[in-house]
Amino acid sequence: MDILSVIETKKQGQPLSREQIRFFVRGAADGTLPDYQLAALLMAIRLQGMNAQETADLTMEMAASGSMLKPDVSGVPVDKHSTGGVGDTTTLILAPLVAACGGKVLKMSGRGLGHTGGTVDKLESIRGMQVELPEDTFVSIVREVGCCVVGQSARLAPADKRLYALRDVTGTVDSIPLIASSILSKKFAAGASAIVLDVKTGSGALMPTLDRSIDLAKTMVDIGNLAGRKIIAVVSGMDEPLGSHVGNALEVKEAVDVLSGRTEGPLKEVSLFLGAQMLVASGVCENESEAQKQLDEALSSGRGLEKLKEMIRAQGGDSAICDDVTLLPKAPCIRPVYAKEAGWLAKVNGVALGMAAQQMGAGRATKEDAIDPAVGFVMEKRIGDWVDQGDVICILHAKDEASATETQEKILAALSFSPVPVPPARLIYALVTPEGVSNI
Amino acid sequence: MDILSVIETKKQGQPLSREQIRFFVRGAADGTLPDYQLAALLMAIRLQGMNAQETADLTMEMAASGSMLKPDVSGVPVDKHSTGGVGDTTTLILAPLVAACGGKVLKMSGRGLGHTGGTVDKLESIRGMQVELPEDTFVSIVREVGCCVVGQSARLAPADKRLYALRDVTGTVDSIPLIASSILSKKFAAGASAIVLDVKTGSGALMPTLDRSIDLAKTMVDIGNLAGRKIIAVVSGMDEPLGSHVGNALEVKEAVDVLSGRTEGPLKEVSLFLGAQMLVASGVCENESEAQKQLDEALSSGRGLEKLKEMIRAQGGDSAICDDVTLLPKAPCIRPVYAKEAGWLAKVNGVALGMAAQQMGAGRATKEDAIDPAVGFVMEKRIGDWVDQGDVICILHAKDEASATETQEKILAALSFSPVPVPPARLIYALVTPEGVSNI
Repeated sequence: MDILSVIETKKQGQPLSREQIRFFVRGAADGTLPDYQLAALLMAIRLQGMNAQETADLTMEMAASGSMLKPDVSGVPVDKHSTGGVGDTTTLILAPLVAACGGKVLKMSGRGLGHTGGTVDKLESIRGMQVELPEDTFVSIVREVGCCVVGQSARLAPADKRLYALRDVTGTVDSIPLIASSILSKKFAAGASAIVLDVKTGSGALMPTLDRSIDLAKTMVDIGNLAGRKIIAVVSGMDEPLGSHVGNALEVKEAVDVLSGRTEGPLKEVSLFLGAQMLVASGVCENESEAQKQLDEALSSGRGLEKLKEMIRAQGGDSAICDDVTLLPKAPCIRPVYAKEAGWLAKVNGVALGMAAQQMGAGRATKEDAIDPAVGFVMEKRIGDWVDQGDVICILHAKDEASATETQEKILAALSFSPVPVPPARLIYALVTPEGVSNI
Repeated sequence: MDILSVIETKKQGQPLSREQIRFFVRGAADGTLPDYQLAALLMAIRLQGMNAQETADLTMEMAASGSMLKPDVSGVPVDKHSTGGVGDTTTLILAPLVAACGGKVLKMSGRGLGHTGGTVDKLESIRGMQVELPEDTFVSIVREVGCCVVGQSARLAPADKRLYALRDVTGTVDSIPLIASSILSKKFAAGASAIVLDVKTGSGALMPTLDRSIDLAKTMVDIGNLAGRKIIAVVSGMDEPLGSHVGNALEVKEAVDVLSGRTEGPLKEVSLFLGAQMLVASGVCENESEAQKQLDEALSSGRGLEKLKEMIRAQGGDSAICDDVTLLPKAPCIRPVYAKEAGWLAKVNGVALGMAAQQMGAGRATKEDAIDPAVGFVMEKRIGDWVDQGDVICILHAKDEASATETQEKILAALSFSPVPVPPARLIYALVTPEGVSNI
């Protein structure tokens, strides 16, 4: 086999065979294929597409390009993945809740880049917390505690790593088969048998339209069918940050607040919805309503918060933050932002808020940047809320006054007001399972 | 401007602006753009296409990526280009004939690669012949003699050189805008104001179908319109070698035979047809019939052969070969190939014959290979001829018996016979001018 015949097949719009896919994926992983041939092939895939079988084959071959974990967790290993949001800390809420209900949450998570935060960065704001663990320690924590969250291992899916970097610089990011296979190859390699996907939709999301988001969700569910893994995808909105807190320690605080029963709202609602899908996908619960009941009980009884403490302790972290959130890192400059105009909050530019937080020090512009765990902001208003001029719209947690002043302008510029009432932003649009798509 | 926005535009199927085209062509020429981004862009162009204006812009920007000759030849500089044939030595016949009629033939020619021969390689079989000349010498020979044929200068169209090499290894050769702009950028840079193109059609040609060949011809004529150069394209068949001689010295001999009036047939016919277009395109003659009359006169009077002698002398070669073709290099092993079956010769695999000649030593498998000027073969039968078992079908000129035996098998395998009569192969299919397409 040679790469030119693989490129030719896809260029002509024909499906690639499993062997052709294996050939180029291995060549990407072992470095025998040059970037320029892979780039031409990626563009041909972007423009000619891939059918369900090809996409599943690509996912499985990328998963098989490095180590494949077969974790013994005394149960069905379940994972959850979000395509990237702002103020989206569902993992820290649902992982302990699902574990408290008997699920085995095995989660490798990315670090934040650009406007989106990373769960691993959030966890590192807890003193002592270890997110780089040997694989056997990771698996034994999942087995014993029921959940563990660590950073992505470089040993998994090396072909994806190379192709992802190349897509970024060749205009081939926005391809559903390439996105789907990239996400799932890492999950498959990490050993998840059941996976719940949170596919964000809306401006700033990977997929800008609802139709395309549902297509991506369906593609990933189909891969699960063909690869013998149970996948459920939720299509959710990213019209504004999901939680009110944006920033690493601030998001950990909000997760603890939700698990303690002190905070209601969209973050809790979406976390419970996703958690229920995880319990169904992994077969712990028969159906969604049973799962929902168990999760409610785990939350109200405090067993979810206890699981978070257990997980933090197992990963070497200071679990006292679960009882006293003031032990988390604190920013030196905390001050409110006041509304300059009155109206109904109509639009929130989530990407702009994410970028503002990143520029405060909460995120990275390049992979090498260090993160300040304490900085960020807390939104006091959501889409649909009435705001009077002079109302506190947001509380900044900045490293200094200059950063606070700069961020204040960015946040105000990211908000639009309406003179007429506006409905709250939709949280969940659709649920995609092997049985089909249901709009919610 | 950045390359990702250029890739994005084409990926979305939108036309590239002149500025976007200039940006990537300059980045290709000066090495500031990496191969992988150019490869992705080339595949996007291959799959999304380019309109006439983009294709003309690409041609002009590639021409402008290096030196642009403005040759003073005391007349309209005219060039001719073939998209690649076997046994196709029209240049050595038409260049002196057109010069004898007052044309100024300025020809930079490629070297052979794979199954196609190169005019420059053929000329080098003449003792002393210089094909690498300084530009001013080249131009002054065109001015004084009326024709000169040299190798392609590396200083011309360097962007094309890089993109061509990349297309070859990324499956993006078969794109009409990329082929058309690659061919014409070099012609424009070399200073041709009038260009006649011989677009080959049929199996083994760059364009396999007549429709696609006519599309390529139209694309190139359109570029001429938009770039202010007179371009005429002829679509001709490559169902079998045009001349009967295949091999470097053998093809020079055949050209001399035609110019001496000793040989009739398709090679002469196509040479005169193309030559007439060159005289019309460069404005030397008003119309084709006048051009044809002048060319006939130049041929029958021997003035064409005289011009070839003048050109050979001006380029340092031994013009005595024009009076005595036995002075050309001779192969040590000359022997006939006999037909093994009887029938009408129905099909000739021209690519297989070209490859057979290359493997005898007449051509190159890689750019670094040396050429044996003496080897090749002379076909004694054409499509449509009746062949009896035992008839001489071909005369081999080989370096040794082993090569002759090997080649004999390849030639016999390249021929198919029919029990019923077969018409001769069509020579010319269509003429494409700025006024439109006429089928011939």
